[in-house]
Amino acid sequence: MSQLGTFSEVGRLREVLVHRPDLSLQRLTPGNCEALLFDDVLWVKKARQEHDAFVDSLRERGVVVLDLGTMLAQTLDIPDARKWLLDQRVTTASVGEDLLGEMRGWLDEMPAHALGRYLIGGIARAELPFEPIGLSARTMLPQDFVLPPLPNQLFTRDSSCWVYGGVSINAMYWPARRPEAANVAAIYKFHPHFVGAEFEIWSDSSTTLAGIASLEGGDVMPLADGVVLIGMGERTTPQAVSMLATRLFAAGAATRVVAGLMPRDRSFMHLDTVFTFCDRDLVTVYPPIVDRIKTWSLRPSALSGGVEIIAESGPFLSVVQEALGLSTLRVISTGGDGYEIEREQWDDGNNLLAVEPGVVIGYDRNVFTNTMLRHAGVEVITIEGSELGRGRGGSHCMSCPVARDPL
Amino acid sequence: MSQLGTFSEVGRLREVLVHRPDLSLQRLTPGNCEALLFDDVLWVKKARQEHDAFVDSLRERGVVVLDLGTMLAQTLDIPDARKWLLDQRVTTASVGEDLLGEMRGWLDEMPAHALGRYLIGGIARAELPFEPIGLSARTMLPQDFVLPPLPNQLFTRDSSCWVYGGVSINAMYWPARRPEAANVAAIYKFHPHFVGAEFEIWSDSSTTLAGIASLEGGDVMPLADGVVLIGMGERTTPQAVSMLATRLFAAGAATRVVAGLMPRDRSFMHLDTVFTFCDRDLVTVYPPIVDRIKTWSLRPSALSGGVEIIAESGPFLSVVQEALGLSTLRVISTGGDGYEIEREQWDDGNNLLAVEPGVVIGYDRNVFTNTMLRHAGVEVITIEGSELGRGRGGSHCMSCPVARDPL
Amino acid sequence: MSQLGTFSEVGRLREVLVHRPDLSLQRLTPGNCEALLFDDVLWVKKARQEHDAFVDSLRERGVVVLDLGTMLAQTLDIPDARKWLLDQRVTTASVGEDLLGEMRGWLDEMPAHALGRYLIGGIARAELPFEPIGLSARTMLPQDFVLPPLPNQLFTRDSSCWVYGGVSINAMYWPARRPEAANVAAIYKFHPHFVGAEFEIWSDSSTTLAGIASLEGGDVMPLADGVVLIGMGERTTPQAVSMLATRLFAAGAATRVVAGLMPRDRSFMHLDTVFTFCDRDLVTVYPPIVDRIKTWSLRPSALSGGVEIIAESGPFLSVVQEALGLSTLRVISTGGDGYEIEREQWDDGNNLLAVEPGVVIGYDRNVFTNTMLRHAGVEVITIEGSELGRGRGGSHCMSCPVARDPL
Amino acid sequence: MSQLGTFSEVGRLREVLVHRPDLSLQRLTPGNCEALLFDDVLWVKKARQEHDAFVDSLRERGVVVLDLGTMLAQTLDIPDARKWLLDQRVTTASVGEDLLGEMRGWLDEMPAHALGRYLIGGIARAELPFEPIGLSARTMLPQDFVLPPLPNQLFTRDSSCWVYGGVSINAMYWPARRPEAANVAAIYKFHPHFVGAEFEIWSDSSTTLAGIASLEGGDVMPLADGVVLIGMGERTTPQAVSMLATRLFAAGAATRVVAGLMPRDRSFMHLDTVFTFCDRDLVTVYPPIVDRIKTWSLRPSALSGGVEIIAESGPFLSVVQEALGLSTLRVISTGGDGYEIEREQWDDGNNLLAVEPGVVIGYDRNVFTNTMLRHAGVEVITIEGSELGRGRGGSHCMSCPVARDPL
Repeated sequence: MSQLGTFSEVGRLREVLVHRPDLSLQRLTPGNCEALLFDDVLWVKKARQEHDAFVDSLRERGVVVLDLGTMLAQTLDIPDARKWLLDQRVTTASVGEDLLGEMRGWLDEMPAHALGRYLIGGIARAELPFEPIGLSARTMLPQDFVLPPLPNQLFTRDSSCWVYGGVSINAMYWPARRPEAANVAAIYKFHPHFVGAEFEIWSDSSTTLAGIASLEGGDVMPLADGVVLIGMGERTTPQAVSMLATRLFAAGAATRVVAGLMPRDRSFMHLDTVFTFCDRDLVTVYPPIVDRIKTWSLRPSALSGGVEIIAESGPFLSVVQEALGLSTLRVISTGGDGYEIEREQWDDGNNLLAVEPGVVIGYDRNVFTNTMLRHAGVEVITIEGSELGRGRGGSHCMSCPVARDPL
Repeated sequence: MSQLGTFSEVGRLREVLVHRPDLSLQRLTPGNCEALLFDDVLWVKKARQEHDAFVDSLRERGVVVLDLGTMLAQTLDIPDARKWLLDQRVTTASVGEDLLGEMRGWLDEMPAHALGRYLIGGIARAELPFEPIGLSARTMLPQDFVLPPLPNQLFTRDSSCWVYGGVSINAMYWPARRPEAANVAAIYKFHPHFVGAEFEIWSDSSTTLAGIASLEGGDVMPLADGVVLIGMGERTTPQAVSMLATRLFAAGAATRVVAGLMPRDRSFMHLDTVFTFCDRDLVTVYPPIVDRIKTWSLRPSALSGGVEIIAESGPFLSVVQEALGLSTLRVISTGGDGYEIEREQWDDGNNLLAVEPGVVIGYDRNVFTNTMLRHAGVEVITIEGSELGRGRGGSHCMSCPVARDPL
Repeated sequence: MSQLGTFSEVGRLREVLVHRPDLSLQRLTPGNCEALLFDDVLWVKKARQEHDAFVDSLRERGVVVLDLGTMLAQTLDIPDARKWLLDQRVTTASVGEDLLGEMRGWLDEMPAHALGRYLIGGIARAELPFEPIGLSARTMLPQDFVLPPLPNQLFTRDSSCWVYGGVSINAMYWPARRPEAANVAAIYKFHPHFVGAEFEIWSDSSTTLAGIASLEGGDVMPLADGVVLIGMGERTTPQAVSMLATRLFAAGAATRVVAGLMPRDRSFMHLDTVFTFCDRDLVTVYPPIVDRIKTWSLRPSALSGGVEIIAESGPFLSVVQEALGLSTLRVISTGGDGYEIEREQWDDGNNLLAVEPGVVIGYDRNVFTNTMLRHAGVEVITIEGSELGRGRGGSHCMSCPVARDPL
Repeated sequence: MSQLGTFSEVGRLREVLVHRPDLSLQRLTPGNCEALLFDDVLWVKKARQEHDAFVDSLRERGVVVLDLGTMLAQTLDIPDARKWLLDQRVTTASVGEDLLGEMRGWLDEMPAHALGRYLIGGIARAELPFEPIGLSARTMLPQDFVLPPLPNQLFTRDSSCWVYGGVSINAMYWPARRPEAANVAAIYKFHPHFVGAEFEIWSDSSTTLAGIASLEGGDVMPLADGVVLIGMGERTTPQAVSMLATRLFAAGAATRVVAGLMPRDRSFMHLDTVFTFCDRDLVTVYPPIVDRIKTWSLRPSALSGGVEIIAESGPFLSVVQEALGLSTLRVISTGGDGYEIEREQWDDGNNLLAVEPGVVIGYDRNVFTNTMLRHAGVEVITIEGSELGRGRGGSHCMSCPVARDPL
C-alpha cells in the first residue's frame, strides 16, 4: 500500500484520482447544461479518447492513476458502502417521498457497475423500470431527471483535496455539485485501497449542509514545509479557510495558511484557473487577476481561538515566494498578444498539473503559454482538448493527487 | 381568542398576517437585488405608506391585521422563543464559526425590537459593535451582510399558509428565502396569540432542509368542502403537494387536492400571480398561462400509500368549477388590449385578496381588469402601489390569512 | 420671439422642450420593453400627472415650456413639414415595400394630432385601417408594430441638445432611438417657433446613418465662456466629440471642449446620470464613476486639422474647475450609507436640472442627496417620480433647454 | 468558364465558395465573442485543418472550391476593385473622420494579400503603423478595433446566395455582419472568375442600409422547377422575401416561393439549422421547430403588385413535398434519445451539404443522425468539427454553392 498524502504542488506525483468521461456528460444538452454548471455540450466519445491520452501521459511518467468510476463500482460491491452511499444520495430530499421506496429497492439490487454509473450519470424518468404511482413522476417528461447527473465529477480536484497527510472532503458551493463529495467519500471510507491506509480526514462535508463555509479543491495548494495556499472567491469562503486552518494547525499538519482573496468584480472559478506551479520556483499566472489578489497569513496561536491572522502588505506573488523561502520566484504569464492572453487563460493555459518538478501536462492548444514555459526550461507534455476542454478545466482541474512527494 | 383557520379563498376574512415594509427593503440596491430575489429597488418610506393604506382597507372591513414585525419583536421578548429562533438563524452554516460566538453574544442581549428588525432586515458588516478577529470579517466590505436581509418577508403568503384548521410552514424554493419560514415559525410556536390556540401544524419546514419538496403559499388555495387547490411550478413541486395531501388526508382535513401544473416554458412564480378568486363563483385569470395548466386530482385511498391520483382530462377551470360544485364559474380575464393584458398581469392585476365574497383589494393601476371585475359586480377596493408594486406582488401575495370563514 | 441658445448649465432657464408621457409608453410590456430600451413598464396616467407637476414647477419659475408632442402636431399641419417627416420616417427601410404605399396614403390624410401621436407612439398591426395584402402583415400578430414606438422620446435631452447659439440634432447610439431625432428635426426645421429664429444647426443627424460617430445630449454640457463639457461612454463616441468640436471651433462658438471618458467596465448611460451642475460652483456627483473619468481638452488650432488635443493629467473635477476659472468647486456626492448611495444614483439623485443658479428640480425620493444639497444652500424643488422614475431618467434627462442665460 | 447558378439543393455540386479560417477568428476572445456574434472562441490552427479536410472532401467529389480569402486578395489587386471596396468599408461611418484619411492612405498602398486579410480580420489599434492624432485613437486600448473583424465570414452561405441563374448579395440582419456582404460583392463585381460570366444579381445590399428587409442565405433554398424555399425568422423578414420573390418573378427565374415562418418563442438562426435536403426526396429535420412552421406560397400575378400570396393549410413538410411534385418525402429526424436529439441539432446534425443526390457532408460527431441517414441510403461523408463546430455552423452554413445542377 502506497504512502498517501500530497506534500507539495510539484514534487513527484505518485498517485492521482481522475474520472473518465461517462454517462453524466452524455446527459448534457444546450438546454440543461447551464443548470448543471457546465459551459457547453461535448462529444463524449472523443472527450473520452482525449482523457485516455491524459491518463496515458500520467502513467508514462510512473503515476498510479485511480479512476473514480471504477473505484466507485468496486466500492458499491461492498454492502456497507452501498448502504452508506445510497443513504446519502437517495433520500426524501433528493428524490422525494413519492419515489423513495421503489427507487431504493431497485438500486439496492442493481449490479455495482450499473449503480456506480447511475450515481454519477443520473437517472432519467424514462429509465425507471417500474411505473411510479406518485404525482412527481406523472408530471415529468421522459428526459427529466429523477436523480440529477454530476457532469462536474470530471473535475476530481474539487470534491476532495489532499493536504499533506490527510484529505478534505469538500462542502461544494453549488448544491448541484454537492453529491460529488458523497460519491468520493464512499470511496475513501470503504474502498480497500483506502481502508487501513494511514491518513487523516480533515473534514467530511459529504454528510453536512454546506452553508456559508464552502471550499473546493481547485483553490487549495499544499506548497511545502507546512505552508498551504488557498484562494478565496466564489467557491471558497474565508469561513471555510479558517475552519480548515484550525484543523490543520490542531493536527500539527500545517504551520501557515496563505489565503488570497480574488477580486469580486470578475468571476474566476478557482485559484488554479489563474495560477499553478510548474516547478519548485516557477508559476504560471494570469496577471489581470493574480495582480489584484489580497493576501492574509494564518498561523497557529495560543490566543485568538488558535489562529493568528496577519494581513500581508506585499503582492500575492511576493508572499508566495517568501512563504516558500525562495530568493526568486519565476513567473510565466499567459502568453500571446492581447487576444491570445484572454483566449489561453480561458482554455486553461494556466491550469497545469506537474508530474514532477519542471514537468507539467497541458492542452496543446495553448501554444503561446506552452512555448514560454518551454523557453523557461519547463517540459510541457501536451494533450488534445478540443472536446475535453469545453468543460473549462485543464489537467489541474481534472486531477486529484492522492500521493505526491515533498519538494 | 379567535378561531384560527382558513376555510375558503373568499369567505369573510377575519384575521390576516402582513409585514410592514422595513429595513430589509432599505438594504436593496441595483447591485444586490437580483441575488436577494427582488425585482427592483423601491422607496421604502413611500412603500410603507402604501402598505399602511392596504392595512387600513383591511381594518375598515373588520379584518384583524397582525403585523409580522411587531409579532416577531413580541415573540423575541420570550426567552425560550429568542433562544429557539437564534438557534435556527445564527448558526455555523449561516454566519460561520468565525463570527458565531460574538454574534450570538451580541444578539442574545439585544432588545427584542432591535433584534426582530435585524432578523428580517439583515446585519451589515459595518453594524457589528465589535471588531471581529476572524478571517471572514476582514475580507468584507462595510455593506457586506453578515446576516442577509429578507426583503421577501413582505410576501407573508409564501412562508406559511393556512389550510383549513392548520398551518403549513413552508420549505421555500430558494435558499435566500428559507429563513423567512423560521421567523414565522417562532411566532406560531411562541407568541401568546397562537400558544394555546387550537390548530394543526401540517408541516414545519423551518427546521429542515428543503430539497426537492419545496412549497410556497402563493400556490396554495383552500377552496371549500375539503378541496384544496395547489399550483405546481418553479416554487412548488409535485413531491411537496403529495406530502401535504397525505397529511391533510390523514388528518381528515381535506378530501381532495386539485394539483395544477403550470407550463414550464414561461416562468410564473406562483399560481396566484395568474389566478385568484374574487367571489364564490368568480375568478380572475391570465389566460395565456391558465389555459395551459394540466390538472390531477388527489384523493384519500386505502391503497396506494393513502393517496389516489387521477389525471383530469378537462381544462383547469372546468376542474375547479366541478370541484366547487358550481354550475357555472365566472371568469374575468386580465383586461385591456394586447399590451395592457401583459402589463396588468405583470402589475398584479390578477393577484387579488378577497375580504369577503365579492369584495377584493387590488392596485389602482390595473384599470382595465378592475373595471371588468366591477362590471361583473365585484367591489374592488383600490390601493396605490407605485412603490409597493415594484416588488411584483399584490394584495394576495402580501397577506397570509390566518382566519377566514367557509363559504 | 425669444432669443434661442443655451449659454450655461445653471444660468436662468428661459425655455425648455419636454415631452408629456403618451401612447409610446402605453405600448411597453414586460416582454417588449428591453427591445425598446426601457427598463420597466409604468402606469402612464400616473406618470403623466407626475410629469405635469414637473412642468408646473418649471412654469412657476418662469420657464417657457414647449411640449414636443404638441409642437409635433402643429408642425404636421404644415404640408411641407408633414411630407418631409413622413419621407424620413415611413420608408422602405422602416415599414417595408409591402406596406409603404398604403401606409403612406393613410398617414398623408391623417389629422395632424393623430399623426403626431402615431409618429411617437408607433402603430400596431391591429390599428391599420386597411387589410394589407403583403406577406409581412400576414405574418404579424395584432400587437406587432408596423412602426415601432419611441418611448424614450420622453428624454428630450438626448435627441437634440443646444450648445451656445445652436443645436445639435443627434445621431443616437441605438437604432431604436434614431427616429426620435427625425421628429425633433421636423420641429426645428418647420415649426413657426423656430422658423425665422436665429440659430445654428451644428449637425443634423436625423437624415444620416449614425455609424461610429454617435452622440447623445445627456453627455453634452455647455459650461461658460466657450467651454463645452462632453462625456464619452456607451452612447457618445470620441469621433462624435471631435466632429462637434471641429464645427463649434469653426463657427467660433466654442474655444475648448473638455472630453471625459467614463470607465468601460461599468455601464452608465450618460455623463448626466453621474454628474450635473446645481450652482455656478457646485456639482453633484456619483464618485465611483466620476473619480475614474479620464480627461482630454480640445482647442482650436491652426494645425492638426483644426483641433489640438491635450491629455489632462489632473482629475476630472479639477479640470472642470480650472476650465470654469473657479478657485473652488463644491462637490456634493450621492448621499446616504453604502446602500443608499447606490439606490439614489439609480433613482437619478445626481440627475438634476437647474432652473437658475442654486435652484434645481429633483425627485423627492432621493432624500439623502437632496438633503445634502440643501445643507449646501441649494434649493431643491422636488417632484414625485414613483412612475416617471421607472424610465430611469430625472429632470435633467427629461428636459432639453432651448434658451438659457449665461452665468 | 463554368456555367454559374444553383438549380437545386441536391443536384451535382459543381462549384462552391468557402472561407478558410483566418485572422478574424484569432481576434475572438471570451470577452468580445458575443458582440462579434460568435458562440465561443476556437483554436484557429486546428479549425483550419478541419476546414481543409472539408475542402478536400469537396474536391474529391469533383467540386471546384473557391476560397473567399484568396479571391478577395486577387480582387484587391485590381485598382478599381480596391477603390470600390475601400470606399464601402473605410468610411466616416465605419472608422470615423479622425482616422479616415490616414487609414485610407495606408490601406491604399498595402499589398493585396495583406489588405484582404485585414478586410476580413479587422484591424487593431495596435496595428496602425502611424500615430493617429485624433481623439478616438487616444481613448483606445491596443486591442480595440479600428476596423472590426468579421469572424462570421466563415459562413459564406449567408452573405450571398445563388438562386437559379443569379445571386442575391444579402442585407444581413446584424450590423456586425453587414460588411461581409461588401467583401463578397467586390469579388462578384470585379474578380475575373465572375466578370464576363453570365448571371443576374437579384439584389445587391452591400451598398444599401438593411432596415426591415434583411435576408440571409441560410434561409434560402432553390428546390427545382422554379420553386424557391425561404425560411423567415430572426434573420430573414417577410419584407425581404417579398422583395426577392418580386424580382425572381419579374425575371422569370422562379414561379413560386414557399415561405415558412419559424416559431418566435425559440430562436433558431436559419432554416438550414433545422432542415436540409440530403436527396431528391429526403430531408433531415429537427421536428420541434419544423413541425411548427407556418407556410405561405407566393406566385407571380398580374394583379396584387405582381405577387399573389396564399396561406397554405397543410404542414410545412407536405407543402415542400407538393411543391417538389413528390409522391412521398422521406424525413429523417435528428437522431438519438431526448438528450442526443437536442445535442445533435445543436452540433449541426441537420445542417448538411449535398454534393450530389444522396451524398452529403456532415460532422462525425452526430453519430445518431448520420447513422439514420445511412440506414436510409444516404452516403454521409464525415469531417471532424471539434473546433470548427464551435462556431455553430455545419457544412451547409460554411458553403455558398455557386454552380449546382438541377435535379
